[in-house]
Amino acid sequence: CLSAPFLPVVLRADGFGGDPFYQCLIAELAPEQEDKQGHLIGYALFFFGYSVNTGRIVYLENLYVVSESRGRGIGKKLMSEVAKVALARGCVEMKFTVAEWNVRALAWYRQLGAQDKTEAGGWHCMELGGEALHRLAGDRR
Amino acid sequence: CLSAPFLPVVLRADGFGGDPFYQCLIAELAPEQEDKQGHLIGYALFFFGYSVNTGRIVYLENLYVVSESRGRGIGKKLMSEVAKVALARGCVEMKFTVAEWNVRALAWYRQLGAQDKTEAGGWHCMELGGEALHRLAGDRR
Repeated sequence: CLSAPFLPVVLRADGFGGDPFYQCLIAELAPEQEDKQGHLIGYALFFFGYSVNTGRIVYLENLYVVSESRGRGIGKKLMSEVAKVALARGCVEMKFTVAEWNVRALAWYRQLGAQDKTEAGGWHCMELGGEALHRLAGDRR
Repeated sequence: CLSAPFLPVVLRADGFGGDPFYQCLIAELAPEQEDKQGHLIGYALFFFGYSVNTGRIVYLENLYVVSESRGRGIGKKLMSEVAKVALARGCVEMKFTVAEWNVRALAWYRQLGAQDKTEAGGWHCMELGGEALHRLAGDRR
């Protein structure tokens, strides 16, 4: 159900190899539910990081629940499990980004107590990749 | 020169202990410059993460140069070194946030080839911490 243009083998190596770049929690149907043991219905992909303002943080990169399983609290349960893991690791904050067209998600996150730093403080999300990243590193490609 | 309300001992443990949450590159004056060996004039604090759209990323949490050393290309040199480390680790993108009141920084990052995902795609930076994080984790404090 990942929307990424990756081969599963790359995702597996990057998350579950000897040098993981992310962690992932998976939601599956229990054996007694619909007789589909191990049927994947959602995931939360996250990694740990740091804020010079607050300390250890967890960055929730992606939260996904398949459309037919939405409205059953699975997304919140996944987020809750990430929060538990984060608190156990000494994190004080969860960070993530949401597109403003995703009005329902924005409202839901606010209801959970999330603060919108773009709205409140004018924070902009920046990305520097591809040729620009190589140029910055001084590569002469 | 860190603006964080941390005891140095916490920053040291979180970045340089057995379980580091960030990495840091430091800019110092060379011995022949102003006869001040080891005088700290800037730093870049970063950590690694993941994007389901692109793969391995580096998150530049903070870039700082002391005011009397600005305008000498030290910030760009620090960013360039982070880009080198990131590319060596297989990263394809550098992410960071900038406050919109920091007009000069925004213009400088754009000049380096950074894309403003908040302006272009309406991305909002969200934070969930404190009581809300504990409530999400199901703590009954």
